Amino acid sequence: MTDFNTYFLMNADEVIPYVKAKTDFFDNDTELSCAEIGDGNLNYVFLVRDEQTGKSLIVKQAGDTARISDEFKLSTNRIRIESNVLKLEGELAPGLVPEVYLYDDVMNCCVMEDLSDHTILRTALNEGKIFPKLADDLTTFMVNTLLLTSDVVIEHKAKKALVQDYINPELCEISEDLVYSEPFTDHNKRNDLFPANREWIEENIYGDDKLRFEAAKLKFAFMTNAQALVHGDLHSGSVFVKEDSTKVIDPEFAFYGPMGYDVGNVIANLMFAWSRAYVTGGEEKYIAWLENTIRDSVDLFSKKFLASWKENVTEIMAKEQGFDRWYLDTVLQDTAAVTGMELTRRIAGLAKVKDLTTIADQDQRVTAERICLTAAKQFILDSSAFKTGQQFLNVLKDSASSHNMR
Amino acid sequence: MTDFNTYFLMNADEVIPYVKAKTDFFDNDTELSCAEIGDGNLNYVFLVRDEQTGKSLIVKQAGDTARISDEFKLSTNRIRIESNVLKLEGELAPGLVPEVYLYDDVMNCCVMEDLSDHTILRTALNEGKIFPKLADDLTTFMVNTLLLTSDVVIEHKAKKALVQDYINPELCEISEDLVYSEPFTDHNKRNDLFPANREWIEENIYGDDKLRFEAAKLKFAFMTNAQALVHGDLHSGSVFVKEDSTKVIDPEFAFYGPMGYDVGNVIANLMFAWSRAYVTGGEEKYIAWLENTIRDSVDLFSKKFLASWKENVTEIMAKEQGFDRWYLDTVLQDTAAVTGMELTRRIAGLAKVKDLTTIADQDQRVTAERICLTAAKQFILDSSAFKTGQQFLNVLKDSASSHNMR
Repeated sequence: MTDFNTYFLMNADEVIPYVKAKTDFFDNDTELSCAEIGDGNLNYVFLVRDEQTGKSLIVKQAGDTARISDEFKLSTNRIRIESNVLKLEGELAPGLVPEVYLYDDVMNCCVMEDLSDHTILRTALNEGKIFPKLADDLTTFMVNTLLLTSDVVIEHKAKKALVQDYINPELCEISEDLVYSEPFTDHNKRNDLFPANREWIEENIYGDDKLRFEAAKLKFAFMTNAQALVHGDLHSGSVFVKEDSTKVIDPEFAFYGPMGYDVGNVIANLMFAWSRAYVTGGEEKYIAWLENTIRDSVDLFSKKFLASWKENVTEIMAKEQGFDRWYLDTVLQDTAAVTGMELTRRIAGLAKVKDLTTIADQDQRVTAERICLTAAKQFILDSSAFKTGQQFLNVLKDSASSHNMR
Repeated sequence: MTDFNTYFLMNADEVIPYVKAKTDFFDNDTELSCAEIGDGNLNYVFLVRDEQTGKSLIVKQAGDTARISDEFKLSTNRIRIESNVLKLEGELAPGLVPEVYLYDDVMNCCVMEDLSDHTILRTALNEGKIFPKLADDLTTFMVNTLLLTSDVVIEHKAKKALVQDYINPELCEISEDLVYSEPFTDHNKRNDLFPANREWIEENIYGDDKLRFEAAKLKFAFMTNAQALVHGDLHSGSVFVKEDSTKVIDPEFAFYGPMGYDVGNVIANLMFAWSRAYVTGGEEKYIAWLENTIRDSVDLFSKKFLASWKENVTEIMAKEQGFDRWYLDTVLQDTAAVTGMELTRRIAGLAKVKDLTTIADQDQRVTAERICLTAAKQFILDSSAFKTGQQFLNVLKDSASSHNMR
């Protein structure tokens, strides 16, 4: 019998005895099925299931080479980060992340709650589905995981130990390249532009010196500002939803960075959904909900942030009258800037979002992309002006009006 | 014979065989003398010497308890940081730090170049001595150790590994308390004020809400801005000088922090020396040299910084037209603010400087302290205004005029 004391990549048949040996989740004599359901390039994801009771869990194993090629060596550090961050987030924001049953640093596996009854938020948004609790849940998640891991709240020596634990060179490099450099320079010549917008992007994005200069400043802030343990990849593909539940997954990009990085990613990805709905003539009720969700993602964040500050602040200097509001304003400024960076990089860079790429009509897609990019520039160039959800939304809607489809 | 494979605190007799066993510095049959010359509370410093040839070295051993009490446990991490940082600084700024012959992580010892022929800069300044190369050497040291350890120059994954290596919780906490909190709040009730200035300080420092608010912002920048490997304690007690040589010592406070932290400490400590000379009627020639040195410490830093940037920049976004100047301006802003913080904390906080405490005349000391504190407030409250050495100097001289002694 395999003892699982030396790392190897498991197949589905090997995962069943692994789960029985390592966890108490199933009875030992239960008959289990197992299927590999991962579609990423780095990890293997197994769904293990007792077909009789329906009880199930997920085993996620990190490969030490890319799935497409043995020659591309990878650190398995990311599964340690993902597992430990999920556990920490689970303590800080109970119920808003999948439960971790086991992290195994030999087999580089994370055994966790199965969320097959949930849908990926991006997919659901593109189908026009409404999730009334979304903004409430995501703002709770962000306030709790961000503020409570910052120097405002936790003892500073403990915070520094967390900074050290979650130094994340490989995955930060991906963001540094794909978010903070290539969408403004195309210097690696791998940006993937929608042909009908190529010229517009070359002129309005790559050709804008001021924009690139601001992006340079923001890149340094991303690389140096060890403010809070950010999720680091909080787009709508990293959120599982069902009507009464929101679960944030995949924190493998987590590191100590600017709080606004997470908030801005949430806002920008809601804006992709809005732009899609707007140009394709989505349902009014759905669009109205999306607009409320964008507004609430900012305003509930601010409200809960200030309330949590009041309750949890320990840092003596942070208790100064008005410092909470000053600090929040810096987070909102970063949020606006990152909203702009995410909106930009998903159109003018390498990695795309389905919200836009699956718009079938060419003119509609051209318009949706320009709405996002025009808004993006304002978020980046005027980031200090944003304090309320309505202000964020206004920029998007004004941008839509300026590309007048309606 | 002792094998030195298990940590213990050595006495002078044990250091001689230690040096012979661990280094090739002396011939094995040389007769050596050894004396403990340390006066700090944390470390033991031994001078080992061949009396015949005069050849000598220093052994610095870190205690795991404070010298004053066994009950106060200490991490020996600081000697690892000091040794490794000295080696790195020696590569980046050759000749400007003592040479490290050996770092021993079992015995927690650093064996290094003896600088007994040098004087501590603070002592020399208080005697009115002139060191023509001082500003040139210190600005070379700072530009090389700061810019070349930042994301501007080094590969970002390698930089993150350095950030991780030099997380320095215990010693950063000392600065967070003594520099960034207590001098504005006295909340630990251990500030040590010159009685004749107590009332003035309570009114003008502790009583200034705006100043405390700025200090709060600066504290967060100190705790989160992982910009470069700073020395972390670059006052005039951490510099050894002789006429033709400058050596920066004691980097045990080193960590990834704001570049301006080092530059501001240099400027502030030159200003203490100037204030002392000014109120006690120091020689004109000496005062003129000090003023030039203050000016040059800013202007040569800026000039060398921009030249080194041009030569060494690797980060793609940092190559944007004008980004070097923008980045330098942020460093100068931090420098001004830290200049103000250091000027403040050495008078309104716990730790003092001899430049001021040894002024025998009470009125002169009162004036010198107020000159420094009045300037400090302007550096902190108006930090973005400082771009040239003359601007730094003007604030000090205007402050002196306002407390008109002359």
